[in-house]
Amino acid sequence: MQHKNFKNIDKVVFGRGSFSMLSDIIAPVRKENKNYFVFVIDAYFKGKELVKRIPALPEDLVLFEDVDAHEPTTQQIDALRNTILAQKGLPSGIVGIGGGSIMDIAKATALMLTNEGSSTQYQGLNLIKKPGVYHLGIPTISGTGAECSSTAVLTGPVKKLGLKCEWTVFNQVILDPELIASVPNDWWFHTGMDTYIHCIESENGTLNNAFSHAYAEQALSLCRDVFLNEQSGRSAQNDDKLMVASLMGGLSLSYSEVGVCHALSYGLSKILDYRHCYANCVAFQHLEDVYPQGVQEFKKMVAKHKIVLPQHLAEEWSEDILTKMAEVAYNLPHMWHQAFGEAWKEKVSLLYIKDLYKRL
Amino acid sequence: MQHKNFKNIDKVVFGRGSFSMLSDIIAPVRKENKNYFVFVIDAYFKGKELVKRIPALPEDLVLFEDVDAHEPTTQQIDALRNTILAQKGLPSGIVGIGGGSIMDIAKATALMLTNEGSSTQYQGLNLIKKPGVYHLGIPTISGTGAECSSTAVLTGPVKKLGLKCEWTVFNQVILDPELIASVPNDWWFHTGMDTYIHCIESENGTLNNAFSHAYAEQALSLCRDVFLNEQSGRSAQNDDKLMVASLMGGLSLSYSEVGVCHALSYGLSKILDYRHCYANCVAFQHLEDVYPQGVQEFKKMVAKHKIVLPQHLAEEWSEDILTKMAEVAYNLPHMWHQAFGEAWKEKVSLLYIKDLYKRL
Repeated sequence: MQHKNFKNIDKVVFGRGSFSMLSDIIAPVRKENKNYFVFVIDAYFKGKELVKRIPALPEDLVLFEDVDAHEPTTQQIDALRNTILAQKGLPSGIVGIGGGSIMDIAKATALMLTNEGSSTQYQGLNLIKKPGVYHLGIPTISGTGAECSSTAVLTGPVKKLGLKCEWTVFNQVILDPELIASVPNDWWFHTGMDTYIHCIESENGTLNNAFSHAYAEQALSLCRDVFLNEQSGRSAQNDDKLMVASLMGGLSLSYSEVGVCHALSYGLSKILDYRHCYANCVAFQHLEDVYPQGVQEFKKMVAKHKIVLPQHLAEEWSEDILTKMAEVAYNLPHMWHQAFGEAWKEKVSLLYIKDLYKRL
Repeated sequence: MQHKNFKNIDKVVFGRGSFSMLSDIIAPVRKENKNYFVFVIDAYFKGKELVKRIPALPEDLVLFEDVDAHEPTTQQIDALRNTILAQKGLPSGIVGIGGGSIMDIAKATALMLTNEGSSTQYQGLNLIKKPGVYHLGIPTISGTGAECSSTAVLTGPVKKLGLKCEWTVFNQVILDPELIASVPNDWWFHTGMDTYIHCIESENGTLNNAFSHAYAEQALSLCRDVFLNEQSGRSAQNDDKLMVASLMGGLSLSYSEVGVCHALSYGLSKILDYRHCYANCVAFQHLEDVYPQGVQEFKKMVAKHKIVLPQHLAEEWSEDILTKMAEVAYNLPHMWHQAFGEAWKEKVSLLYIKDLYKRL
């Protein structure tokens, strides 16, 4: 009998204002590794107040990464790694400050600083050869669960697939709900829905067990508080809840898996450069036959927060684009297995997936 | 702004039958540390089926510890450490198989194998000087949260207090719900109630935050499924739930704290050798003024499972015993602070605590 043996984040701080503990937290790592630190920050924060609070020393490297245009790519990670090593050699550690993309960039770069060659050759499970440098994540938007996952999802020339191993997991995460207060409303919603969809796919899948179920159930309850119930909407209390929901949704996936929506979403990101959480929302609204209750509730939340999701997108898509997206999605067997069980190929074909895309 | 920076269990397996993964899990540790393993097992399992499944090699040390008579003591840990070192030197690691006491014994022994002198000198926060050896916990009864806590509670000549630091936390935990199926009914109930009481004390305390609240809320919901709702009672499904509840209750405490019931319970254990979870139940039933809803619900669960808790115990206790217990309880300021806030001394005195004990 084999079950997953999952690696936890080593250490976690949760609390309002905890960002200010960053300097103290990395001090012993600086001392032990006797080297500089890299801070990788979402370019969105350039010139903003948060940047002034980053405890960078003169020898540290502060890098802003633009993550608006596309999901993190293998090319981007390789370039970042080369820049860091060329400029200052191996750092003591790397701190990522931003959303899911920055979390993945920090995790992937930490690994690639010590593993030779291109990151494309490590896309998959347990292909990484050596532990990376110390890496610390500070989410500034909540929902992706990237703060606790053992994968750093990268889009490569051939596939969108993560560097997945236990060394990917952060050594430290700082969860400061104050940091997510100023997220633009659409992003707040789309990213929060990533957690909601994680839980729906986790619960309605063949791998769900008491562990993943307990986490999903609680994360769903928190999502309802944040996005659906009477006290829903933007508030300090709901920022606290959303940050915990994102973590718990991610932990639910440690035993379960995502499903149909994420498979479609990966195709949209790989072929059309849709951002992950947005792509999820675009696809999820049309999956009522697969996740009936989840999609119904999702639509209530969309309506409640006056979110406009695009319709009739597929009308613009050529057969070639549809085929390419379907191929990306089909090549995620773990997601189809989660959704439909071992015999998923009886139901799922390229044609079936193309038909799903045509609903969008 | 300071928040707790809590250390997670490094790795966790959850699932029915996962006990059989033990051999594979420790194989790389054997290889890396090039030494034998110690297995510390609750003496309850002597001659039982489970012992035959322990993957001990000829060079390993298999030790049965009797934990029925009293809580783990500093003397017991020192003796165990001395025995192990005298017989075979420093091991590659230590595996604890049993309830909360065995979890604490495994954690404390792992630390004391590398820290000189008596464990009494390390009772408290961050007094341990060096990381211990690799330690792995396999709970065979659920509720104490000892599988995830950063403390190994020991009763010493002067105080009942844990060896508390991040090195205390297990490197690995195997959560196999099949192992708790045969727990005697009273123990199943008393130990399960430890989680329930953790959550009530966590929720009704000054340190509670969104993180501890989310964990407590879900653990309470699981406790209700196991002990109160229509499907409550002994079943495979409820064993799954109880094992997750115990973990989540323990994680709730990572940000919060226990309160009045645990303070009283420590006095009962230190002075009268009451077992921890039983002592909690004995005390909790009389704390309706402090935890009104919690105690009411607790009593429903006691009635539902026909558990008999002793009454009028205090009639047999001398003033001297009452004073001694009150002194033990009073010297747990973090618990009183959690229950009543910074000004707890305005409410809580030796007299107040003695009056609480007189209710028992």
